[in-house]
Amino acid sequence: MRTFRGLDNPSEARVVSAGRTIFRAGDRPDFLYTVLEGEVEISVDGQVVEVVPAGGLFGEMAVIEDHVRAATAVAKTDVRLDAIDQPRFMELIRESPAFALRVMRVLSDRVRRMDERLTQKPRS
Amino acid sequence: MRTFRGLDNPSEARVVSAGRTIFRAGDRPDFLYTVLEGEVEISVDGQVVEVVPAGGLFGEMAVIEDHVRAATAVAKTDVRLDAIDQPRFMELIRESPAFALRVMRVLSDRVRRMDERLTQKPRS
Repeated sequence: MRTFRGLDNPSEARVVSAGRTIFRAGDRPDFLYTVLEGEVEISVDGQVVEVVPAGGLFGEMAVIEDHVRAATAVAKTDVRLDAIDQPRFMELIRESPAFALRVMRVLSDRVRRMDERLTQKPRS
Repeated sequence: MRTFRGLDNPSEARVVSAGRTIFRAGDRPDFLYTVLEGEVEISVDGQVVEVVPAGGLFGEMAVIEDHVRAATAVAKTDVRLDAIDQPRFMELIRESPAFALRVMRVLSDRVRRMDERLTQKPRS
């Protein structure tokens, strides 16, 4: 599992209790998050689309696109998160091609898994 | 529509006739492509998952993940493509945070559209 620990400049750490909402669809994006401990459930229109484990990244889409949140993120267990704001995200991309590539890999993994779901789902 | 023209170091240009296959699922990745003219159809297991217009990017997932192709790409019309190999892709990420962010936006747009398809599709 890829982890984002060990960045030169650690960002804001947050602890969220199981069941608490981290952000809601429609919110203005403020941070993207890496999961340090625990699991986060991502849902769209009440349907769970992803469970993000420790080492995973979420909330980056709204920050990348500067768009309101398309999904809701809820702590599935007690979680510890690293919150990275937009200026820090841009700084990380400039400073670290490896970080940029990791974000791309997270997104690319997600597309691949969604492709599988879309193509395996029986047509209706 | 985002375009990848105007990179400092233009990559290999290719012309592909309508109906010709650019790559097949299971192929080892060699290039990612930006569409300069025309449209490319991306399919998984015979199901079209995306049509990439001029200015769009495709084939980046296998290059980012260093994984065999998950999808098949066919020229929907006559197309002109810019082919970027893996070393050049890594160089572009290092040289240009703006390029890295564009790739992330393409991936992020794709996830957002797939989310919409997954959640709007009637359950069966």
